[in-house]
Amino acid sequence: MPTQVPDQPIATLSDAWRSCVGTGRFNLALRKDYQDSLALTQSEIGFRYIRGHGLLSDDVGVHRPYEVGGERRVLHSFTYVDQVVDAYLELGIKPLVELGFMPSGLAAGGQTVFWWQGNVTPPRDHGEWADLVRAVVGHLVDRYGLEEVRTWPIEVWNEPNLTNFWEGADQFAYHRLYEASAYAVKDVDAELQVGGPSLSPGADDWWAPFAEFVTSRDVPVDFVSRHAYTSGPAGHVPFGTYQTLRAPSSLLEQFDAPRRHLEGTALAGLPVHITEFNSSYRPDNPVHDTAYNAAYLAPVLAAGGDLVDSFSYWTFSDTFEEEGVPTALFHGGFGMLAHGQIKKPTYHLYAFMARMGSQVLARGEDHLVTRDDAGRVTVLAWQPVGGTDDPVEPESHRIRLSVPVGTGGGSDGAAFVLRSSVNETEGNSWAAWREMGRPRFPGRRQLDALSEAAEPVRRHFSIPVAGGRADLELTLGRHEVTLLEIDAVQDQTPEWLDDARILGR
Amino acid sequence: MPTQVPDQPIATLSDAWRSCVGTGRFNLALRKDYQDSLALTQSEIGFRYIRGHGLLSDDVGVHRPYEVGGERRVLHSFTYVDQVVDAYLELGIKPLVELGFMPSGLAAGGQTVFWWQGNVTPPRDHGEWADLVRAVVGHLVDRYGLEEVRTWPIEVWNEPNLTNFWEGADQFAYHRLYEASAYAVKDVDAELQVGGPSLSPGADDWWAPFAEFVTSRDVPVDFVSRHAYTSGPAGHVPFGTYQTLRAPSSLLEQFDAPRRHLEGTALAGLPVHITEFNSSYRPDNPVHDTAYNAAYLAPVLAAGGDLVDSFSYWTFSDTFEEEGVPTALFHGGFGMLAHGQIKKPTYHLYAFMARMGSQVLARGEDHLVTRDDAGRVTVLAWQPVGGTDDPVEPESHRIRLSVPVGTGGGSDGAAFVLRSSVNETEGNSWAAWREMGRPRFPGRRQLDALSEAAEPVRRHFSIPVAGGRADLELTLGRHEVTLLEIDAVQDQTPEWLDDARILGR
Amino acid sequence: MPTQVPDQPIATLSDAWRSCVGTGRFNLALRKDYQDSLALTQSEIGFRYIRGHGLLSDDVGVHRPYEVGGERRVLHSFTYVDQVVDAYLELGIKPLVELGFMPSGLAAGGQTVFWWQGNVTPPRDHGEWADLVRAVVGHLVDRYGLEEVRTWPIEVWNEPNLTNFWEGADQFAYHRLYEASAYAVKDVDAELQVGGPSLSPGADDWWAPFAEFVTSRDVPVDFVSRHAYTSGPAGHVPFGTYQTLRAPSSLLEQFDAPRRHLEGTALAGLPVHITEFNSSYRPDNPVHDTAYNAAYLAPVLAAGGDLVDSFSYWTFSDTFEEEGVPTALFHGGFGMLAHGQIKKPTYHLYAFMARMGSQVLARGEDHLVTRDDAGRVTVLAWQPVGGTDDPVEPESHRIRLSVPVGTGGGSDGAAFVLRSSVNETEGNSWAAWREMGRPRFPGRRQLDALSEAAEPVRRHFSIPVAGGRADLELTLGRHEVTLLEIDAVQDQTPEWLDDARILGR
Amino acid sequence: MPTQVPDQPIATLSDAWRSCVGTGRFNLALRKDYQDSLALTQSEIGFRYIRGHGLLSDDVGVHRPYEVGGERRVLHSFTYVDQVVDAYLELGIKPLVELGFMPSGLAAGGQTVFWWQGNVTPPRDHGEWADLVRAVVGHLVDRYGLEEVRTWPIEVWNEPNLTNFWEGADQFAYHRLYEASAYAVKDVDAELQVGGPSLSPGADDWWAPFAEFVTSRDVPVDFVSRHAYTSGPAGHVPFGTYQTLRAPSSLLEQFDAPRRHLEGTALAGLPVHITEFNSSYRPDNPVHDTAYNAAYLAPVLAAGGDLVDSFSYWTFSDTFEEEGVPTALFHGGFGMLAHGQIKKPTYHLYAFMARMGSQVLARGEDHLVTRDDAGRVTVLAWQPVGGTDDPVEPESHRIRLSVPVGTGGGSDGAAFVLRSSVNETEGNSWAAWREMGRPRFPGRRQLDALSEAAEPVRRHFSIPVAGGRADLELTLGRHEVTLLEIDAVQDQTPEWLDDARILGR
Repeated sequence: MPTQVPDQPIATLSDAWRSCVGTGRFNLALRKDYQDSLALTQSEIGFRYIRGHGLLSDDVGVHRPYEVGGERRVLHSFTYVDQVVDAYLELGIKPLVELGFMPSGLAAGGQTVFWWQGNVTPPRDHGEWADLVRAVVGHLVDRYGLEEVRTWPIEVWNEPNLTNFWEGADQFAYHRLYEASAYAVKDVDAELQVGGPSLSPGADDWWAPFAEFVTSRDVPVDFVSRHAYTSGPAGHVPFGTYQTLRAPSSLLEQFDAPRRHLEGTALAGLPVHITEFNSSYRPDNPVHDTAYNAAYLAPVLAAGGDLVDSFSYWTFSDTFEEEGVPTALFHGGFGMLAHGQIKKPTYHLYAFMARMGSQVLARGEDHLVTRDDAGRVTVLAWQPVGGTDDPVEPESHRIRLSVPVGTGGGSDGAAFVLRSSVNETEGNSWAAWREMGRPRFPGRRQLDALSEAAEPVRRHFSIPVAGGRADLELTLGRHEVTLLEIDAVQDQTPEWLDDARILGR
Repeated sequence: MPTQVPDQPIATLSDAWRSCVGTGRFNLALRKDYQDSLALTQSEIGFRYIRGHGLLSDDVGVHRPYEVGGERRVLHSFTYVDQVVDAYLELGIKPLVELGFMPSGLAAGGQTVFWWQGNVTPPRDHGEWADLVRAVVGHLVDRYGLEEVRTWPIEVWNEPNLTNFWEGADQFAYHRLYEASAYAVKDVDAELQVGGPSLSPGADDWWAPFAEFVTSRDVPVDFVSRHAYTSGPAGHVPFGTYQTLRAPSSLLEQFDAPRRHLEGTALAGLPVHITEFNSSYRPDNPVHDTAYNAAYLAPVLAAGGDLVDSFSYWTFSDTFEEEGVPTALFHGGFGMLAHGQIKKPTYHLYAFMARMGSQVLARGEDHLVTRDDAGRVTVLAWQPVGGTDDPVEPESHRIRLSVPVGTGGGSDGAAFVLRSSVNETEGNSWAAWREMGRPRFPGRRQLDALSEAAEPVRRHFSIPVAGGRADLELTLGRHEVTLLEIDAVQDQTPEWLDDARILGR
Repeated sequence: MPTQVPDQPIATLSDAWRSCVGTGRFNLALRKDYQDSLALTQSEIGFRYIRGHGLLSDDVGVHRPYEVGGERRVLHSFTYVDQVVDAYLELGIKPLVELGFMPSGLAAGGQTVFWWQGNVTPPRDHGEWADLVRAVVGHLVDRYGLEEVRTWPIEVWNEPNLTNFWEGADQFAYHRLYEASAYAVKDVDAELQVGGPSLSPGADDWWAPFAEFVTSRDVPVDFVSRHAYTSGPAGHVPFGTYQTLRAPSSLLEQFDAPRRHLEGTALAGLPVHITEFNSSYRPDNPVHDTAYNAAYLAPVLAAGGDLVDSFSYWTFSDTFEEEGVPTALFHGGFGMLAHGQIKKPTYHLYAFMARMGSQVLARGEDHLVTRDDAGRVTVLAWQPVGGTDDPVEPESHRIRLSVPVGTGGGSDGAAFVLRSSVNETEGNSWAAWREMGRPRFPGRRQLDALSEAAEPVRRHFSIPVAGGRADLELTLGRHEVTLLEIDAVQDQTPEWLDDARILGR
Repeated sequence: MPTQVPDQPIATLSDAWRSCVGTGRFNLALRKDYQDSLALTQSEIGFRYIRGHGLLSDDVGVHRPYEVGGERRVLHSFTYVDQVVDAYLELGIKPLVELGFMPSGLAAGGQTVFWWQGNVTPPRDHGEWADLVRAVVGHLVDRYGLEEVRTWPIEVWNEPNLTNFWEGADQFAYHRLYEASAYAVKDVDAELQVGGPSLSPGADDWWAPFAEFVTSRDVPVDFVSRHAYTSGPAGHVPFGTYQTLRAPSSLLEQFDAPRRHLEGTALAGLPVHITEFNSSYRPDNPVHDTAYNAAYLAPVLAAGGDLVDSFSYWTFSDTFEEEGVPTALFHGGFGMLAHGQIKKPTYHLYAFMARMGSQVLARGEDHLVTRDDAGRVTVLAWQPVGGTDDPVEPESHRIRLSVPVGTGGGSDGAAFVLRSSVNETEGNSWAAWREMGRPRFPGRRQLDALSEAAEPVRRHFSIPVAGGRADLELTLGRHEVTLLEIDAVQDQTPEWLDDARILGR
């Protein structure tokens, strides 16, 4: 018996899944490959915000101390800030502004994170930090208008609970930084949105002190933020890492953590942004290149919007250098897109989501069914996968659905179905690359072949509609994510056409 | 036992198949959809010449009589000629210039052909016609340079043996027109190439008189031209036609007709251009939209270059109006591309040919195997189809080939294969359109779905190579044309990689 | 004493000047040069509507009678309608739909207008006409949505008061056509806007009967329309025409005619659209190529919005064929743009207007001063010209203005001025073309030189601001139209900069 | 009396002036602004080679040591090399490969140069360095083909005679590096071109030892290279530098230095490449933004090709970071183009040169006259400037030339002249920027105004031709560089045209 998909919506599909996306450090946004990738992403998916590190790091050149007449002064410089934010807005995406890391000319210490050496120490002078924040935010307001910038969340720092991102994981020092930053933002305009504390997984014990600190000192907080990852300990190989994965439901639990932990505090009810999430937190874990990753995240995208206001896939592109310059086309990078705009399976999961309608008709463990305002029914289906501890998934997965088609309640006829599939062999550039012998630096023809192999396999067919419903019997391949777009057929075939006559036989 | 494909080339693949392509009338080349289609065609196929009717028809505005002081004069005007030829050259294609039809201000009569009313009567004044030819050719030489224009064949008129293309199919009048035209061309420059007689099928009795005429009067002829079609009598329905088809070998026989008929004449050995060919000669026969048409023409493209210097598919685009403005997206037009650059199966046949190498390794009734200078082996395979009198083709067709892979004579290892398929369901926009209910004027989303359905289905896999050879077992669908691109794998997988570790299980 | 421009707005600049623009016949919109020109126009000027003839003429292929089983039926076909309207909307412009001319399969007679033979006779069957109108409008609603199409004015026919546009200039027959059309439009949706009677100049005696007819029979009218031209009798030369011109104020009087003539009728107060205007109504009058035309129309653009809801320059592009295919690059065509997107002076007048702010600070016989919301002050100035009967204009024209600069009432400092000029030698492609010897079909390098010569000459300078005001002393060349864009300077020059040190001397 | 320009060529204009251009470090070529600037440069100027530093620096990620099983190995990685070189070739420019700086994993010491920290110490292990060179060159040959890479000069290091570019300016250590590099290059293919020693000005005493070293040890040298600058000691201000300049003839003397110093050695007669030149060697000297710089370099471009095989302007774009991220749009950067593709005067000098013909008719201290194969005569003229010690240049400079026009020896008629001017106010984005108050981070509208102000002012006129010659009386503004393009007019004005009739008055 097929699952009966109701004809009436049971919910509205939240836009939280595409509210925000992650990016490599700010300076990388100057690159052509990055901007080409973002343009493609925006045309086929359409995120609303983008968030990454490094706005205030030295390679953006914002904080510029100099001397004149023996006196130290600071120039705030926006040459690259303008180039990047101009490009973002032109591509239809807004920054979710992360304040960090520390300019070396303002840093209290020398500790850095990543190959590109982001300084993770507190400011030597909180007044000069506040000047910097005011200058940055004020410049954005001058250039893009107050009304616009009020819509950009401003997040203070990144994962201060980790010693590698914040010297000593010093909670007190973070609170002090948060306070100075939040006031500086509000100095520019009281309706700008500021928030934090951008916690990594495993630090939910920071919520209560944060709530208490800002409440007791009346520090502004307009939203709270946390990250979510499900990978286990890292096993390193040269230029790569292997990790275990927990079940995808763990991501949803993590999404929900801020709400749970802030219940009863003054911060309860604030918008919650998951400003980073993915399966693995390592930029060199090959899982990111696989169809498994797409199947794994499918139920998260389908359900995450019930829990939070945004959850930001870390990251849209492999133009990313935390572990240095990548040494192979596929290197386990976070990107939905590899260099050269080669699509990975997870990219398609997002692109499929972007074709869904806003009316949710059904949601199950292996499917999501929606309808758009024009009456088109869309089915996103996937093979459920459960992480390391689950048994290896079978070669195929079957789904039967009875879906309503067309607007009339009981019409008969046909529906046209366009099905797009991504699995271990179809729409899978990584699989093709392995078959090619994993060429580290593929030549032009190999890149063309990978681009072609990266497209979902499309099938189309006509199915009968009876009483306004059609039966779908779907067989999914291993780790498949598939999209079906279903339109009622309005047959315009004239009476005189007879395809049997085409060859006259 | 698989067919053994030799390791050494047996021939060089002639470029005749892409030497020339047909087009709707000259004026249509001003259109954006036309130029977008030509740009796509050139980027993926790359024809060298383009030929169509109507250069001298009124809607191009070349022949412009006027009066001044009571005296009749003629201005030769090139506003649109320049726009079109500039565009052609920018798109990397040269005109094969057809002189015709007759400007109304110079025509002896009022008979016209086609919905767009090309005048098909002789000139009232052969001197004024010669002036016109000299002016046109001279202008082209002025604008594009003599060296360039010497490479453009100039063909006198179109199918003068048919009464609807040349008043009364008057052989004598054609010879007179040819003579005036040829001399006028040579007046501009003796090395310009002029030819004819552009015969339709069924008029091979014109060859001897033409040869005799030009020989006896020493009229210049640099090439000869003929057309080839295999369709039978037309059965009309509103806005459409059904016809029978002879076997594809009939096209090759027609290609060879000029050589056979000119043997022993002074014209023997001249270049032969098939300036039009297709299955059906009707612009409203749905066969042109089908995978059948591609399978039907595959052996013709593979072998035609043995017989002639060029054979020009009629036509690259559905922007074509001989029977009026099309009344549906798919309407049986000649085009490889429907409006909006939607690819039909025959387009892919040509695009597949464009990926073949120049060394022919094998050629059979259902396959062509080549290698390029970089060592890549390419297989074009098709299901043989035989026209109306053949039995209906089976659902599938099997081919087994043993192909040489890589440069070494006896290496072992693997090869990467990228296979692209077009058949009754795959890569078949027309099939998808039928499933949609044949919407005459598809909306935006339907057009997008058709574009996606129009792409060949791509599969990729790795096959073992032993002793420098790989076995291919291919199953083709109905009316399939398929391309396999085969590269020897140079395995760069590092010793420490183990995909089994990706999920840590 | 300079003219004192007030600091406070005296009016808001109406958008009527760019509400609509004219175009050559519908079929021409399929062309690439046309669409390239429209894209340029939209990017630099940004019209909201576009209106031209020929939607229903045979070369668009809408009305398609056919026979099946011996019975006559009509297919309504939208292949080209969709291509064109899709392109319009993608370019950010909407159609102002003109219903006409008559399909030959529906026409009562054979009379045609123009080289391209628009049939100007009534329908043989008003029921079939109404079917056609319903089909066209219904198709537009289906494809583009009712909400969108409700914003598209639908005008019935063109200049029915002229015998060459409407057989016999038969007023009764027009009223009958109008009635059938208006009801057919409203059959599709009652809120669609329909209007007429699209009168040419010199037919204001048609207003009263039209008002009486529609009132007495309760026929829907949502707007009224008229044309305006100021040229006198045509003196013909081969491929050209010379005419006298009345003063530009005559255009404004004509704009106002519908209001005057409809006063007191039931149609008083309806929106008035001038659906065509220009100096000369001939597509081969060289005045259209001149700076004179721009200077002549400048006061009309500045003031026309006081009188009507739109006035549509006839036409944006020289892709236009009423008198046949143009025989030279500059041929007196209506276009703001010549073929190949070469800008004429009138194009710049419109592009200058598009840079004006919405607050009118001053308006005089030779200037218009505005300010935008960002505080930028803009001056459009021109040499007044008066048509044929005025004396020849002097070589130069001087204007002195004291303009407010910046937001503060009494600030001192400087303003940056960017001045763009078009006159008899600057920004004047036609002048350059004459100097070249009027090459009919310019070569690539000549076209490049013309494109460069077509750009306005730009000058920039800094002027002192005292008490929040700056003095402008402008000298305009013959027939000049000039734009000044004035921004208050916020000086960021650091104290240590000294340009005198650059060469160290 | 005007200077008589001969009718017959006196020389052929060498392409040396556009043989090569300089660029910021290799990694910057990944940026979009960089590639947009290079695309513009290539379309309007068309350099053949591009040279810059940093191919082997850490931010390109080529040299990648790692451990496996406790053993140190090195992976050579080309992810970014391929992205950049692919882009170069697509833009029609080839790399002139500079080998440097030292990867930190191979460096013997920690000394770095520039804000971006290029390591300037010798390799710890010359064998590993040779491996690196072989790997890089071998990879280029694999990817781009041997035939192609043989045309790319490979230069060993940069300015080893300066202590900040080569630890201790150690001549012996450089010779050792050169030897290892040259042999490694030739290991890949004997016909690849390798050279050095890339000397800065003031180090001509290195020539003899270099020649002796390579001769005595039979080390391959295919070309020699040197740099040329004319600026004096730097006077620093915050984010800027002022310097004196010697006369432009000093550049030509420096170009000629290698030839002079190598006379009589085994290296005499080798190709000489000036792989960097400019007025000032500082990336923060405002002279680079001025018209002065263009006038200063004009005679150098006109004459440099007599002395050397190439001379490479340092650099095409302001995307350049030796002194850190620029803190203002105009900051004295080397670029012909500022960020955002805003053209500086020196850009126009090059663009003007690109329009010159190959036949030199005359060359003087303030002009260069050429003719191209189509007969067009082109005049490049400039106001001579002499550096710091010269008196301040007058406001204007006059030139009178009698130039041959057209092909005939004694024809009368007219010529069309298009003149493009760049001087202290025209075609001068920097001047406009100063008038704007030097906004560090201009907004969108300011950038648009700067782009418009950056275009040369174009004037056009017709001049009489008598006896095949025309007189040009030119007045140049301060620091002007001007281009005149002169074409003989072939008058096509019909007899019936009379512009006086246009207004009928």
